[in-house]
Amino acid sequence: MTENKQPTYNPGKGAGEPVGVAILGHGTVGSEVLRLMEENSDAFAHRIGGTLEIKGVAVSDLGKPREGVDPALLTDDAMALINRDDVDIVVEVIGGIDYPRELVLAALRAGKSVVTANKALVAAHADELAAAADAANVDLYFEAAVAAAIPVVGMLRRSLAGDNILRISGIVNGTTNFILDAMESTGATYDDALAEATRLGYAEADPTADVEGHDAASKAAILASLGFHTRVKFDDVHCEGISSITAEDIQAARDAGYVIKLLAICERVTDEQGNESVAASVHPTLVPKEHPLASVNESYNAIFVEAEAAGRLMFYGNGAGGAPTASAVLGDLVGAARNKVHGGRAPGENTYANLPVADFGDVTTRYHIDMEVEDRTGVLAELAAIFAARGISLKTIRQEESGDNARLIVVTHSARESNLAATVEELQKISAVKAVNSVIRLI
Amino acid sequence: MTENKQPTYNPGKGAGEPVGVAILGHGTVGSEVLRLMEENSDAFAHRIGGTLEIKGVAVSDLGKPREGVDPALLTDDAMALINRDDVDIVVEVIGGIDYPRELVLAALRAGKSVVTANKALVAAHADELAAAADAANVDLYFEAAVAAAIPVVGMLRRSLAGDNILRISGIVNGTTNFILDAMESTGATYDDALAEATRLGYAEADPTADVEGHDAASKAAILASLGFHTRVKFDDVHCEGISSITAEDIQAARDAGYVIKLLAICERVTDEQGNESVAASVHPTLVPKEHPLASVNESYNAIFVEAEAAGRLMFYGNGAGGAPTASAVLGDLVGAARNKVHGGRAPGENTYANLPVADFGDVTTRYHIDMEVEDRTGVLAELAAIFAARGISLKTIRQEESGDNARLIVVTHSARESNLAATVEELQKISAVKAVNSVIRLI
Repeated sequence: MTENKQPTYNPGKGAGEPVGVAILGHGTVGSEVLRLMEENSDAFAHRIGGTLEIKGVAVSDLGKPREGVDPALLTDDAMALINRDDVDIVVEVIGGIDYPRELVLAALRAGKSVVTANKALVAAHADELAAAADAANVDLYFEAAVAAAIPVVGMLRRSLAGDNILRISGIVNGTTNFILDAMESTGATYDDALAEATRLGYAEADPTADVEGHDAASKAAILASLGFHTRVKFDDVHCEGISSITAEDIQAARDAGYVIKLLAICERVTDEQGNESVAASVHPTLVPKEHPLASVNESYNAIFVEAEAAGRLMFYGNGAGGAPTASAVLGDLVGAARNKVHGGRAPGENTYANLPVADFGDVTTRYHIDMEVEDRTGVLAELAAIFAARGISLKTIRQEESGDNARLIVVTHSARESNLAATVEELQKISAVKAVNSVIRLI
Repeated sequence: MTENKQPTYNPGKGAGEPVGVAILGHGTVGSEVLRLMEENSDAFAHRIGGTLEIKGVAVSDLGKPREGVDPALLTDDAMALINRDDVDIVVEVIGGIDYPRELVLAALRAGKSVVTANKALVAAHADELAAAADAANVDLYFEAAVAAAIPVVGMLRRSLAGDNILRISGIVNGTTNFILDAMESTGATYDDALAEATRLGYAEADPTADVEGHDAASKAAILASLGFHTRVKFDDVHCEGISSITAEDIQAARDAGYVIKLLAICERVTDEQGNESVAASVHPTLVPKEHPLASVNESYNAIFVEAEAAGRLMFYGNGAGGAPTASAVLGDLVGAARNKVHGGRAPGENTYANLPVADFGDVTTRYHIDMEVEDRTGVLAELAAIFAARGISLKTIRQEESGDNARLIVVTHSARESNLAATVEELQKISAVKAVNSVIRLI
């Protein structure tokens, strides 16, 4: 089915009874959500036009001591809590995929609106969840799943609903932005910058999901799906992390007027036959230092959108953390509660465009290639011929001494990934090329 | 009445009949709205779950040749068009205050939802318009009234509805940002930069509304009202423009590590008795060059929000122009149409906090004061005593030769406007001070 059922008639329950809320999870985000609901209960009541009442907080470990939550609210039976008649909205802040999927589907099927912060769940199962929400005529909100407090989901779902997105480029992972920014500003190696990030709490003990780009890839899938009204899942995202970026790469980038950022890039692709598709990828990217994304430092996130009528837009802020994530959860909760009281629904998911996912080889990009080459006559001609054979022209070339060899750095003009990748493969095989040090795409 | 009626249940009309749209105005924005509705009619129908049909386009001059609009749709009887039974939504893109106010009120009272781009109208009459929308149970959207395509209204109304705003600082006028940026990057005088802006179309023949800050003040009133759930009108905004900024001011700022931006600043104020109020002001402001707002160049806009849970957020993009403004209008139109088809209402205006507008003297700020002073012993002591007498401490002091005199530049620590202004007045009277060259606030 190519078209999702749009929201239909959904009268509200009025302001007579409170809106019942079930909170699933009491970790960093869950406890912050509870704290802020308590602190702002009057303000929220005014903004909703009705009161919120927490009916229960589901946790896995009832024995663990917990601050800031009435023990009478705690339960380890999430399913029973979800199914209570007096629960209208379920907030899922557990994390993980399989168990939350079970709970969220149960909530939707029981007619409860759902607010989630779970990017992995949404990136993997958005279609199933959206269908369940539509069938039950309830809302599924997930602003907190992408870049925490930066309201990119609402922006794509509502604000840009009258425009057409051309491209979305985002710094959507704070860990990797912190590491690359530390390497940029201090000249540190990757390993030292990662150690610093870990020490300061910007990287987890096992940083794989962040540094290999998986976290960013989940967000890329969600952004691409929303931006292009189509279905893109985590597995559709081409993903490269930052663990092979070196201090020399950072220096070479700086010399050429760039910084290196790990970007999620979502765009329309037109293949050689003129067929349209959507591509989402995550990879280290050279960004000109004048570009707005270049000045996004530390662990901040930013999403840069190019739309047909709006032109360039950028949204910057805290992309992670308990309070910023809770801010997004609570914005959604107030929205869901307004609908429960007054009637109506948020825009449902809409994949009407139903574009196929691009073959990554069809994506157009530009490469920055850093090589050690033999320092002799004819090498440049040999290399240039290899590029030309695949229709790739060179934008800039820089050569400098490197011991007995020469270091050659080229930036190509735009070309298809498949041609660029094949060219690099060929370069690696010829004797004139001692090593390809790095290949980094440009924004 | 301190509390606005919240949206009540409003069933949709279903997708059987098209949603009828009346466009009032066919200038730069109106013609772009029409063009994009035509171009995107299928996409919009999918996103709305129903079709849009333009029932008429009201213009003042039927004789003027117009491209891109079916002449059969043109009318000079806006009131008749508004009142047609088959019109569901009225789009106001005429501009001005009195006549649009009449039309918008008529539309709302006739049960039509309204989408407007008119900042002056909203800044002056938001309360009356919102009350009319509530009474008729229809929507009033005005994303396009503030910073065009940058979705700041939706962000404040929805995304941050679960948070509390501390402060909003915005570059919301492209003309003045272009002029200040030109002065910054080329060392041009104000007059030369204004001439360049006029030549390039960034300034109008009569640039007063832009350069004196009135345009920014309308937007400040709207942002303050939304951000603090209270009523702030154009007349409540303290407004200073850029026409007295000199190339020397720009240079002095650069030497101290700042750029000068015209900012709209909206914040909560607590007076000496502990009473809360809201202040909105527009004035040239020193912004540290590392601050995200400092890198906003040319005619771009940006709104920087500090919220309790979310922390820092910034939204950057085109704040003016036909297509960016149309993008915002169309986002609202799709939203209004979704509600007409499926039922429900956008969050209404909500001024529940009902905070008073601050006495501008109670606002806390920091001054950068540039003076010519007599070059003799004891001058510094004399001046320092004047500051100290009003409880103002100095953060930085710089003195350099200036002919027979000395040039003294001080930056104060935070203090109340009334104390700072009184201090400057006193400084201007003493013989040791030859001239106060400029007084500019810091962000």
